[in-house]
Amino acid sequence: MLSFAQFNVISKKANTIPQFNMAKNFSSRAEDYSQWYNDIVKHAELAENSSVRGSMVIKPYGYALWENMQRELDRMFKETGHENAYFPLFIPKSFFSKEASHVEGFAKECAVVTHYRLKIDENGGGIIVDPDAKLEEELIVRPTSETIIWDTYKRWVKSYRDLPILINQWANVVRWEMRTRLFLRTSEFLWQEGHTAHATEREAIAEAEQMLEVYADFAENFMAIPVIKGTKSPNERFAGALETYCIEALMQDGKALQAGTSHFLGQNFAKAFDVKYLSKENTLEYVWATSWGVSTRLIGAIIMGHSDDNGLVLPPRLAPIQVVIIPIYKNEQQLEEISDEVKEIMKRLRSKGIRVKYDNRDTQKPGFKFAEYEYKGVPVRFGIGPRDLENKTIEVARRDNLTKEMMPMEGIEEKVLLLLDEIQQNLFERASNFRKKNSKNVDTWEEFKIEIEKGGFLYAHWDGSSETEQKIKEETKATIRAIPLDAKEEMGKCIYSGLPSSKRVVFARAY
Amino acid sequence: MLSFAQFNVISKKANTIPQFNMAKNFSSRAEDYSQWYNDIVKHAELAENSSVRGSMVIKPYGYALWENMQRELDRMFKETGHENAYFPLFIPKSFFSKEASHVEGFAKECAVVTHYRLKIDENGGGIIVDPDAKLEEELIVRPTSETIIWDTYKRWVKSYRDLPILINQWANVVRWEMRTRLFLRTSEFLWQEGHTAHATEREAIAEAEQMLEVYADFAENFMAIPVIKGTKSPNERFAGALETYCIEALMQDGKALQAGTSHFLGQNFAKAFDVKYLSKENTLEYVWATSWGVSTRLIGAIIMGHSDDNGLVLPPRLAPIQVVIIPIYKNEQQLEEISDEVKEIMKRLRSKGIRVKYDNRDTQKPGFKFAEYEYKGVPVRFGIGPRDLENKTIEVARRDNLTKEMMPMEGIEEKVLLLLDEIQQNLFERASNFRKKNSKNVDTWEEFKIEIEKGGFLYAHWDGSSETEQKIKEETKATIRAIPLDAKEEMGKCIYSGLPSSKRVVFARAY
Repeated sequence: MLSFAQFNVISKKANTIPQFNMAKNFSSRAEDYSQWYNDIVKHAELAENSSVRGSMVIKPYGYALWENMQRELDRMFKETGHENAYFPLFIPKSFFSKEASHVEGFAKECAVVTHYRLKIDENGGGIIVDPDAKLEEELIVRPTSETIIWDTYKRWVKSYRDLPILINQWANVVRWEMRTRLFLRTSEFLWQEGHTAHATEREAIAEAEQMLEVYADFAENFMAIPVIKGTKSPNERFAGALETYCIEALMQDGKALQAGTSHFLGQNFAKAFDVKYLSKENTLEYVWATSWGVSTRLIGAIIMGHSDDNGLVLPPRLAPIQVVIIPIYKNEQQLEEISDEVKEIMKRLRSKGIRVKYDNRDTQKPGFKFAEYEYKGVPVRFGIGPRDLENKTIEVARRDNLTKEMMPMEGIEEKVLLLLDEIQQNLFERASNFRKKNSKNVDTWEEFKIEIEKGGFLYAHWDGSSETEQKIKEETKATIRAIPLDAKEEMGKCIYSGLPSSKRVVFARAY
Repeated sequence: MLSFAQFNVISKKANTIPQFNMAKNFSSRAEDYSQWYNDIVKHAELAENSSVRGSMVIKPYGYALWENMQRELDRMFKETGHENAYFPLFIPKSFFSKEASHVEGFAKECAVVTHYRLKIDENGGGIIVDPDAKLEEELIVRPTSETIIWDTYKRWVKSYRDLPILINQWANVVRWEMRTRLFLRTSEFLWQEGHTAHATEREAIAEAEQMLEVYADFAENFMAIPVIKGTKSPNERFAGALETYCIEALMQDGKALQAGTSHFLGQNFAKAFDVKYLSKENTLEYVWATSWGVSTRLIGAIIMGHSDDNGLVLPPRLAPIQVVIIPIYKNEQQLEEISDEVKEIMKRLRSKGIRVKYDNRDTQKPGFKFAEYEYKGVPVRFGIGPRDLENKTIEVARRDNLTKEMMPMEGIEEKVLLLLDEIQQNLFERASNFRKKNSKNVDTWEEFKIEIEKGGFLYAHWDGSSETEQKIKEETKATIRAIPLDAKEEMGKCIYSGLPSSKRVVFARAY
């Protein structure tokens, strides 16, 4: 386990903040990392387990975070020429048999619809499945939509004029999971899946690479999490892909998290569903495909990428509330005066597009509210009391480094805009420094076995064989997270087999 | 069947438009109303049937329309204090037994998940359902989410401080349908469902009524469709509701379409799921509930509310493309000059928030494009040729009344903004006039039987009994669409039983 002290750079000023430590009831990362994560998901009110095994309830605060992520991603998809559409939730069982490697990967652990009616049991057994309402062919709740979408594209594609098709879908998917964790692995989750069809191989590869760039841009500039861009080894590839591109992020416990994938599918699905087009040269050709997706799992990455022992820390660009304003008052009249001033301040903040909340609940004291919003990761907190009204000042606290300072009310909207950018930047730098400190070259098997226990990204030579990769996984639980796109040519020997290798790949234990 | 001539008020100018009648291959309303609807859904590229019985594919143009509807509704929900959240797709079978009337209404025709794994048949039968992976309790794919949500609210509500809960969910739902029609009735559809919890009965009723107003506002001011606001008779009430509020719209074939419902659920679900709160007076009380929803069915209402024999007609406020610009050119150089000008025009239109598309495809002639966008219901079309560049003019065509006129390029963005409003207003007025012409008071059973064949809304006295309503339905296929909120007190006799009645209700045949 890593030392978390290296992660949080808390300035000395932090000690001057009164500690209404709501978070003291919750686990710290060093005590119990897994419980710390669960506590944040639960007590920051992001999500909770439902009565349905493996399915979560995404609570309003968590869903607002997802909506902000969706909005930015959706904008990026549309700016790169994609449109949204919607395809059926159910997929006929036989569709999964059509692409041989796909069925291996996806048709196993899934939810199967076999009947379409319930009835009241005549023998008093309550509601039962009506045995007369059995489906001729079972339907699978989509684990991913390549098959149903390529069955549709077959109807849409006749000529090169119909290409490319650049479509994205926002949807729920189901993959039956035995061991679930909120956001990171649940049976049902929300995601987007892009599915594109192209006339040429080159165009499809360019699309898959473009979407990897979009994901990396989103991860780094919105989630504030640095990622390695790379390809997957054959073992880790998407079932049905010729190449899987990925972005990999490092979490605070030293484990890797796959944050997004973009697949070059070749002509596999076009062949499986017989999708051909008449080319300009009047020949019939199979269509080339890509698919790419990110999911609510990214919320897990945000939590583990930035949060600390005081709770959630959110990057300003995605935070549902960017600024929370808390009035500090002794009586009704003071509250009224503060509220009048706050109304004006909020108007100015909103005119700059800042998401602001005024918490004037009279059921909780300021200290409780301070701790609550700290735990919920709101980037900036304003405290305003009677003296601030006199002095025309605001006490401004930053969630990222827990510092605070007095600022003049005048022009506060401009200051906050800069401050939110600064916090966004600081989170990215902090996470980048952490990753840098926890990435190393490893050249021997002995060293590898020691270093992998410490966590982090290990850059090591690999002989390129699936057998070696499998053995390394069995002995250390480490997998190849990515073959970096920017890997330098460097002759070396495989850490496991000693066979020659021309570049380093990235190993880690992963979520 | 109604005469459609009364619906479309086409000015004389219309005849001057060259008729590239792409639509001539498609049915007119008078010939075959049902086929006319299907043609529009298909050829305006809104949606199509999928390989999964009863499930549709919503195509990009149709989905863009839904996104615009979502955006406006979502804004309205948030402005009235609601937040979004997400609840599980699957609901344990036993949950449906908990609310007695709800099970009758919803647990019957539904998709039942019984297994969680497939496997390769050892006897060569391909992929089969693994008999060892049978669920202990079957899961139902949500037909609506009251049960799973109230199971969740039980964990969230302890005290009056936790109330109200004002939540909305955007989701897919499944109700097994034997006879399906695109958008109007499909097994899977997209919708939003609001679920709120309140401390008092009065507050819950106010919420249900507020959301009815939101829906009516949306229908009239965005969809441009006038609606009757009313309550449902007990026969037509939502399963589990004490009162169902509804908005009812009249389609061009004289049939009614229920466009949205808002339910006051009383304490039924709170009792079924044992959700109580500690009041300010320190007593334990059951929580009061509402739920409310609209779905992709509204797209069917837009189609049937406004379209004509030339294809789809979309209200500008929801149209994915508000203005399409088509260049008319003879050579590359002309196209280039036009494109330079169009670039500037588009910038100005976009600065006003107008959704504009420039169709410079060189694979289709202008005439084809004119017909295509006409069929797809784009409210305003610009034609720009070399002479327009000289004269600094644009040929502007309106989809609603098929007129066109020349306008100066200068200040076109302001003109179009006004024109879009005018079209929006005209569609609403046209639909209102149509409804007015097809709404009438009916006072005898003989008259009722004749008038119901003609279609439209019949205002008639009813004795208030379910038996009478049922008999009228059996004899005429007409149902009570709404008991209007603004119905005047008026003594009369039930058209069927002759028993006394104090106000008229609205009868119609319905989708």
